[in-house]
Amino acid sequence: MADVAKVVTIIGSSPESFAKAADVAVKEAAKTLRGITGADVVSMSAEVDGDRITMYRTTVNIAFGIERS
Amino acid sequence: MADVAKVVTIIGSSPESFAKAADVAVKEAAKTLRGITGADVVSMSAEVDGDRITMYRTTVNIAFGIERS
Amino acid sequence: MADVAKVVTIIGSSPESFAKAADVAVKEAAKTLRGITGADVVSMSAEVDGDRITMYRTTVNIAFGIERS
Amino acid sequence: MADVAKVVTIIGSSPESFAKAADVAVKEAAKTLRGITGADVVSMSAEVDGDRITMYRTTVNIAFGIERS
Amino acid sequence: MADVAKVVTIIGSSPESFAKAADVAVKEAAKTLRGITGADVVSMSAEVDGDRITMYRTTVNIAFGIERS
Amino acid sequence: MADVAKVVTIIGSSPESFAKAADVAVKEAAKTLRGITGADVVSMSAEVDGDRITMYRTTVNIAFGIERS
Amino acid sequence: MADVAKVVTIIGSSPESFAKAADVAVKEAAKTLRGITGADVVSMSAEVDGDRITMYRTTVNIAFGIERS
Amino acid sequence: MADVAKVVTIIGSSPESFAKAADVAVKEAAKTLRGITGADVVSMSAEVDGDRITMYRTTVNIAFGIERS
Amino acid sequence: MADVAKVVTIIGSSPESFAKAADVAVKEAAKTLRGITGADVVSMSAEVDGDRITMYRTTVNIAFGIERS
Amino acid sequence: MADVAKVVTIIGSSPESFAKAADVAVKEAAKTLRGITGADVVSMSAEVDGDRITMYRTTVNIAFGIERS
Amino acid sequence: MADVAKVVTIIGSSPESFAKAADVAVKEAAKTLRGITGADVVSMSAEVDGDRITMYRTTVNIAFGIERS
Amino acid sequence: MADVAKVVTIIGSSPESFAKAADVAVKEAAKTLRGITGADVVSMSAEVDGDRITMYRTTVNIAFGIERS
Repeated sequence: MADVAKVVTIIGSSPESFAKAADVAVKEAAKTLRGITGADVVSMSAEVDGDRITMYRTTVNIAFGIERS
Repeated sequence: MADVAKVVTIIGSSPESFAKAADVAVKEAAKTLRGITGADVVSMSAEVDGDRITMYRTTVNIAFGIERS
Repeated sequence: MADVAKVVTIIGSSPESFAKAADVAVKEAAKTLRGITGADVVSMSAEVDGDRITMYRTTVNIAFGIERS
Repeated sequence: MADVAKVVTIIGSSPESFAKAADVAVKEAAKTLRGITGADVVSMSAEVDGDRITMYRTTVNIAFGIERS
Repeated sequence: MADVAKVVTIIGSSPESFAKAADVAVKEAAKTLRGITGADVVSMSAEVDGDRITMYRTTVNIAFGIERS
Repeated sequence: MADVAKVVTIIGSSPESFAKAADVAVKEAAKTLRGITGADVVSMSAEVDGDRITMYRTTVNIAFGIERS
Repeated sequence: MADVAKVVTIIGSSPESFAKAADVAVKEAAKTLRGITGADVVSMSAEVDGDRITMYRTTVNIAFGIERS
Repeated sequence: MADVAKVVTIIGSSPESFAKAADVAVKEAAKTLRGITGADVVSMSAEVDGDRITMYRTTVNIAFGIERS
Repeated sequence: MADVAKVVTIIGSSPESFAKAADVAVKEAAKTLRGITGADVVSMSAEVDGDRITMYRTTVNIAFGIERS
Repeated sequence: MADVAKVVTIIGSSPESFAKAADVAVKEAAKTLRGITGADVVSMSAEVDGDRITMYRTTVNIAFGIERS
Repeated sequence: MADVAKVVTIIGSSPESFAKAADVAVKEAAKTLRGITGADVVSMSAEVDGDRITMYRTTVNIAFGIERS
Repeated sequence: MADVAKVVTIIGSSPESFAKAADVAVKEAAKTLRGITGADVVSMSAEVDGDRITMYRTTVNIAFGIERS
């Protein structure tokens, strides 16, 4: 891990599982951030339509290293 | 969301995953409740038989709108 | 459940899901412990490589009965 | 307080304040429950439309006595 | 445990102890619920009169199985 | 802030709002304490009479500086 | 809600109430963020001058959708 | 309850039970405080000598009304 | 207390009370561990049979000193 | 430890470290309290001036025995 | 403090202490942020190499004022 | 990190600082465990003698990889 890291909170969604939802969050974060070192699950929830879950949501704290100059 | 919602706590089970267990909880709740707006995961556990998990359990708080008259 | 149980904390990993990671933790624990009665999820995290999650990690508290003599 | 009380979780909403939202929750609960003894705030959130809060939401645990026979 | 369980929150009281107060909560719940599988203590408090505790209160989450059809 | 501060816990009440209840707590504390630097909300609850909230209660941790000699 | 949302933490202030302070936080966030979907209260505190609260502060987690391309 | 209450934290001990330990805390507090309205259990621990518990300890938050003038 | 202590988590059971259940946990731990310095209650639950609690369970963290050489 | 102990919350400050800040809190408490048995860290924060921490703050719960008569 | 503040989460590292690690986090944040008003410790961890800690890590929430126009 | 890791809880002590106390815990754990990957601080406390802290204590969760065969 770098000497200093920053943490951002992202909520990912997936119709399949909490794991996939976490992966969606990481993929989105990786579009603009480099040096992601890991992700911690903060909470999980679900969107419901009628009688079933249509979307799983996982909120993750994503840490990425900051280059120090 | 309705002006007022009620929250009930349901524990769903599934031999497959925590996501499926949450969906089982929602499906059961939907048999008697209308207007479910979402579900928040409260905790997760597992039943073990011998050397493996045989049942995943997810406890969810399920919110549903109440019609006000 | 036995009269007395002990709790150990294990972190399992899986490239597939949090559920599989919990199962890996239980399987490992079962190699040396008998009488496992259940597992509670303590936290979840993920290892990231580049732009995606390569390993899901689930930390579980595993309880197993102790034979009293 | 009665010898035994039950606790239900209600989410009230108000365009004015968190206090009013809690009162809405209590008023709704009082339509079907007698003997309410108090309410504990569990969490607060808000619905946002554009650049401002349009609805305050307060989740409360409401306790009411049960007549024992 | 059944495939699906519901959780209700009950506050029991006893002039003797926190354990007796939890038992009062379970006894009351059992009047209307079948298939209770266990009870988790959520919090404990006490009513005071003058210089001593006159009533112990234990708030418990009581889980009971739901028959699925 | 002074080099050393002490923290006291006060519960204020108001028929109007949680904010007013917090202010009542601070006003009362200020009668006997000097150098109050701030107040953190610990929890909120409400007294109910019939079908409405008659008193809002806010529990606050109040910090005040101690003069060191 | 969008497939992916980001969460930022803002502390709003108001001389009137915790609700107004939360609204100030949302208003400020809305100046630079689009697609705000909601706000969760994280904590509340107050600034004290002499014997009264002069400023209410509400810390909120604000979620806003991210357009995925 | 009075308009304003103060909360103090006391740790009581008893060789018998957690309930008795809480009562000891309240009895001690009542020597110097009037108007105690209730006690909330914060935590419980035990002193061990050799192979058994010799003293149960209960930490309680005790609230007492303040006369406003 | 020794310079270094280890903490183990044990769940004790008793048909009588939470205090007795904690004592059972300590007694069991003392069979294999020396130098136990104390026990902190982590959580409490109960086994239910029909309409009453048949077993109280107390989960305790037990600390014991390690001799350093 | 005495049969009954009281707990007070003190915030100590130090330009050097969180440990020194905790010690400052204990030293201040010891000016007016006898029989201090220990201190538990509740939280840590820091005062910032420009680009660096100028003061470390440690909030501690300090327990002291009460002589029973 | 400004009317509105934003909070960012930074993880600082230091081979010396948790206090130095928090200072590293603040120093890094100060390179791009103005008006930092304080830092709250969220959690602490350590990197281990062989039999000793080689790096202390402190995660801090850093608040900085936002100029309102 | 290995596919499976175990977590043990150790309390280290040092007359100097919380950081040193954490290092003592790791050093002790490393005498019997191989493959330690990191340490998370769980809580901090202090032993007091008279008017000052004589021993800092840090409770850490230490994770170490388990070789899978």
